[in-house]
Parts: sequence; C-alpha cells; structure tokens
Amino acid sequence: MSSEPDRFVLQYYDVKLFFGRKILREIKPFIQEYKRFGILTGRSSAKISGAYDDVINLLREFDAEYIVYDKISPNPWVSEAEKAGETLWREGVEAVIAIGGGSVIDVAKVASVIASGGGGFKDVFRGRRPRNMMPLIAINLTHGTGTEIDRYAVLTTDDTREKHGLDIRYPTISVDDPVYTISLPKDHTIYTSLDAFYHAYEAATSNYRNIFVETLSREAIFIIRENLPVLLKDLSDIERRAMLLYASMIAGIAIDQSSTHLNHAIEHVLSGLEPRLPHGLGLALTGPRVVYYTHKVRPIESARILRTLDPNIKPLEEDAEKAMRIVKEFQESLGVTQRLEDYGFSENDFKKIYSYLTERLRYLYEDSTPFQISEDIIRDIISSAL
Amino acid sequence: MSSEPDRFVLQYYDVKLFFGRKILREIKPFIQEYKRFGILTGRSSAKISGAYDDVINLLREFDAEYIVYDKISPNPWVSEAEKAGETLWREGVEAVIAIGGGSVIDVAKVASVIASGGGGFKDVFRGRRPRNMMPLIAINLTHGTGTEIDRYAVLTTDDTREKHGLDIRYPTISVDDPVYTISLPKDHTIYTSLDAFYHAYEAATSNYRNIFVETLSREAIFIIRENLPVLLKDLSDIERRAMLLYASMIAGIAIDQSSTHLNHAIEHVLSGLEPRLPHGLGLALTGPRVVYYTHKVRPIESARILRTLDPNIKPLEEDAEKAMRIVKEFQESLGVTQRLEDYGFSENDFKKIYSYLTERLRYLYEDSTPFQISEDIIRDIISSAL
Repeated sequence: MSSEPDRFVLQYYDVKLFFGRKILREIKPFIQEYKRFGILTGRSSAKISGAYDDVINLLREFDAEYIVYDKISPNPWVSEAEKAGETLWREGVEAVIAIGGGSVIDVAKVASVIASGGGGFKDVFRGRRPRNMMPLIAINLTHGTGTEIDRYAVLTTDDTREKHGLDIRYPTISVDDPVYTISLPKDHTIYTSLDAFYHAYEAATSNYRNIFVETLSREAIFIIRENLPVLLKDLSDIERRAMLLYASMIAGIAIDQSSTHLNHAIEHVLSGLEPRLPHGLGLALTGPRVVYYTHKVRPIESARILRTLDPNIKPLEEDAEKAMRIVKEFQESLGVTQRLEDYGFSENDFKKIYSYLTERLRYLYEDSTPFQISEDIIRDIISSAL
Repeated sequence: MSSEPDRFVLQYYDVKLFFGRKILREIKPFIQEYKRFGILTGRSSAKISGAYDDVINLLREFDAEYIVYDKISPNPWVSEAEKAGETLWREGVEAVIAIGGGSVIDVAKVASVIASGGGGFKDVFRGRRPRNMMPLIAINLTHGTGTEIDRYAVLTTDDTREKHGLDIRYPTISVDDPVYTISLPKDHTIYTSLDAFYHAYEAATSNYRNIFVETLSREAIFIIRENLPVLLKDLSDIERRAMLLYASMIAGIAIDQSSTHLNHAIEHVLSGLEPRLPHGLGLALTGPRVVYYTHKVRPIESARILRTLDPNIKPLEEDAEKAMRIVKEFQESLGVTQRLEDYGFSENDFKKIYSYLTERLRYLYEDSTPFQISEDIIRDIISSAL
C-alpha cells in the first residue's frame, strides 16, 4: 500500500507528461524506439541540475547515438532556433531531447519543426507545420513557463527584436522532475514562479477563459502562495519544489486553453527591447497595474483567483485598487522591489513601447484582453512600473 | 469580446471532450469522416433529453446512414453488450454513437470492442483489445459517472450477477452539454451527483491518489456542495446543471487517474444483487461509514476534501467520526434517507455480500483501498447502511 502522491502521468493533447521524482526512467519505452537523438541545452543548467547526466546514462543503456547542441541562450533569438534546426537536420537525428527551461524547450519546439519540414522561421511564423513532426522530449528544469505542457514557443527576432509567441507544437514527452529544479537560484526561483502566477491570473481572466481553467488557475495561485515563501527559506526543499512545479504545469494548461493577455504582451515588448530583463520579473513590474484594469472589468473572476491571496477581496469593480495592492504586496513579500528604471527604461521610452506593442504584437493581446486598450491605459501601466 | 466560460474542449488521453451548451455541432468534422453509424440508446432518455433529435439532424446533414439500437437497460447486463456488439458488426457500422448515461456509454464501450475485434465479453474481460477500435462518440446525459472521460465500463454478468468494472477504452469524442441533463428527474439528479461525489472522495484517498487528482477532487466536491442543493429547487437551472456536469467530468478524470476504492466495490456487490438499487444511492448508503475508515488512515487527504463541506474538519484520525457525520448530514440535507432495508437487504445477507465482495470483486478494491479490509469492517459498513 505504498504511494507517491506527487507522481503521475498525464496525456494532454499530444503531450504525455511524466511528473515526479526520479521519473525519467519511465520514458524508457519511448527512448527505445529511436536510435539517434539531438540533445539541446543551454550553457550550464542542464549539467548543474543533474538532468544531463541522467539523460546520457539512459541513452547509453540503449546504445543510442546522440549529438549535443549546447548553445541556447536565455531569451533566445530566432537565429538560434534556425541554427539548431539545421544542425538537427544535418545530423539526421530522429528525435530531439530538450533539457532546460522555457528558452531551451521553446527553441527545441521551433527547431524540431524546421528540422522536420525544412524552411525557416518565416515559414513557421506563417503557420507552416510539417505533417510528420520529429518527436520532442522536454526535460523541464524550471517551474514557470508551462512550455512542457503547452503548445507555445517564444522567440525574439534578431533584427527587429520582436519577441513573438507562437502557437507551434506540444512536446511529445515531457518530464517534470522537481529534483531538477533544486539548482534554480533564488532570483530565478521567484521569477519563474511569478511567470506561473501571471499565467494563472491572465488565463482565468482572459476572454478565452473557461471553468476548467478557473479550477487550475485558482489552484496554481493557491499553491504558489502557500509554497513559494517557504521555499525561499530553503531552496532545496524538494516537496515545495514539487508543488511549485505542479502549479506551473497546471498554469501551463491554463494558458494553453485560454491564453495570456495584456501583461504578457507588454512583457514581450520590454524584454524584447532589453533581453537582460528576466521574463518573470518583467511580468511582476507591470502586473499589478494590469490586475487593476482586469479586476475592474472581470471582478468576479479576478476575485475568485485573488481570494487565495486575500480572502477579503470583493468581486466588485470598486475593489480594483485593492486587487492591485494584494498582488503588489505579495510580490514585495518575496523581495521583488525592482523597477523598470533598473533596466534602463524611462518615460522617454513610452512611445517606442507603445508603437511596438500595438503595431507588432497586437495579436498577443487584442482578442484575449478583457478590456479595451488605449494609449492612456498603456502609459499608466508603464508608468506604474518605472 | 464575447465569451462563454462554461464552454471548452479538452483532449485527455484518447478522448476529445466537447463541453458546453449547444456544442454538438462542433463535432461535425468528425462526423464527416464516416458514412455509417450505429446509435445506441436506452429506452427513453435519449429522446426526452433532446439529444437524439440533435444527433439525427446532424447525421442527416451529411447524408450519413445509421441504425438505431435502443434496448439498453440501466445497470446493464453483459448479454446486452454482446448483443449490441454483434448488431454493430452485422450492420457493418463504422462508428458508434452512444446517447445516454453511464449504462449506455459503458455498453457502447464494450460493444465497440466486440464489434471491432470479435469474440465475446470473456475475451474483453481477459484483456483482449483489437488493434483498431471502432470510434466511439459518447453523448452524455447525466452528471455522475464520468464515463465520458474515463476508460472504464461497468457491466453485470447475467448468470452470476457479478457487477464488473473493466478498464476498457476511452470514447473517441465525448459531448457534455448541460442542456441534455435538464430532463434528469430529481432522484437521479441526486444519485448521479453523489456518484461523482464518491468518485472524487475515493480517488483522492485511494492508494493511487496524486496531486492532480486532489486538485480535481476538491473542486468537484466543492462544486457539488455549492450547486446541488440550489439545483434541487429548480431542476431546469442550466447554470447549476453545467457546474454539476463539469464536477462530474473532472471527478471522472480523478478516477481514471487514481481509481475508486472500497465504497464502489461494495456498491457493485449490492446493485449486482439488486439491480433496482440505483448506483449513486447505493454509494450513499455505505459511503459515510467508508469515509470513517478512510479518514482514520488518510486524515490529511480526507480532511482536505471534506473541508469544502465543513471547514472545521481536522486532518486527524480522531476526526473520523466527524468526517462520517459531515458526509451523512450533507446527504440527508439532499433528502437521502433511504436504507438498504428498503431494497430488501437484511443482516442475513451479510455472508453473501462478504463472500461476493472478497471472492469475485477483490480486484476492485484490494490495491486501491487505503486500509486493510477485514470481515468485521465490512460487517460494520453494511450494518451502518441497513
């Protein structure tokens, strides 16, 4: 009658997710089907986390061949995905194994499509998908992006610095082992968790929201609130890591179903212009003010979610200021007190941000955001973060 | 910026679930792929609910041929599934459409396997599955079984009255439209909701429980508690029906992941012996006492779930009596005050029930039940329901 409650397998659309400690070995039957793998990683986290060695040992067990491409950077460029895709194709790999956080897995999604179908990012961006896509195994190392369970990839164009979000493909197999997230440093532990937080909040209040997403979003935010502050006192607390990884995964289902909205779109502009800005931090800077506007038009949905942070929040338009404050105070309690100024932004950048947002990334927020966007609103949101 | 939050599509393992009002038309692309359908229904609910006419109209739009097999009874027998399977095969249908509650959909699951692979129930029971299974479209008419999203089917053997639960197949497409549940009469509205209630409770406390199931189970019980009492005052309240249908669906995912345990096994014995006993009512009769034994060994998991009924329940063994009382009082508040005696059971039946349970249906509870079964415990549970 033994049991491991934080261990499970879930098939969601095209992806079979293996969740739990030391669960990598359960993907063996899948590994056995192929003989030649392409491993994609960033510069260091795959090895530091221990995931790289575990994967190599597994491949060796089956005498599988593999090539390693370990050049993927955080906030990755389109050129990196094209380069990785070409490498996979040239090397004739049969399946890709991405070991990393969102950047690596997202590059692997695009690279696998390019390797399978040829062409370049432009074709992928226009929606071209090969009939038979190379299988993609995602070994996830962070608890934020949700990309291990969703269909999205985020890449920035090299020349124009447009940070695009593509509806591209699910991984074939994903592994969420909390052990691999232990080596995440404190700042990125916070940022990735806040990424999951805003996935949950935005999906639950988006125009595409649904009741299943509400269930998952409420749970994700509750778990983040219960576990993140405790984890920050001991980053190696594996039970808390497991819960945050779980929260981030279900928030990934939430955005897969209902998409994000304005806060994510604005963040794409900001970290597109300044790649040093971590995604989760960027979201936290503008997030509270986006919550304010959202609560005004979706007070019921917003309050249902935020009640997990403060049971006194009311499902009323007049509590919009309070909703903003609750989120802000939660972030401050985690030590998030940075401003956009710290990353070189000023009032002078507003015009650039606004035109970038409305001209190039409109598709990221136009249909999903529950309120009408105006120049004044965007200015107000940016100002609140400066 | 319109939106319908109680409308969504979810692919879970092999089944694509369409949830929402008037959502049937979205399965058109799937209907178009086939030319000859076999429609399975019970005696009346398919027509009363309006689902039958909607399906026929859809098929006519594509000039699809269909045969109708409308003889399936509640608590269906193995012979019915074999007969239905043979009919589907003889008529050369390409896909099955089951319009009904658990009985009809479960018969359709088994019948589709027999039609595709030949043989009889004995082969199916031993685990034989054809490589290519006939597609199965499930139009669900109740909010209890979860069979539209899970892999199980329940059938009773004609001769020995063994009510078996089989791990057989998912539907290919499922439709959960709350409109079709409006015609459920009051008693079955309660019973099917209690079926979902015990799915949630048992899955969340089973030896196979996991954190995803806990999320879904807690939500399901919360929704049942919030919506069922209100619905009973106006059975045509479509919003409440939608929420109960949603709760039942996610409780279906819960048992698909983590299975039920002792309460369901005992109910299989009882309604196997007395098919007049509705499944959900049978669960409610023995349920509170099973909750007592469960809370004793899984106080944390049990309390997390039951807190949605009573926030004062403690995650302590000593609150087992209280856990039992909370569930019992909730059922009584719904008007469930029947006893096993009302269905002809007495103390004299205990030996029969016990040997039936432990000799023939052991597989239904042995690995999943979180406590050790003894004759005394089973006697105590049965006595509590007499």
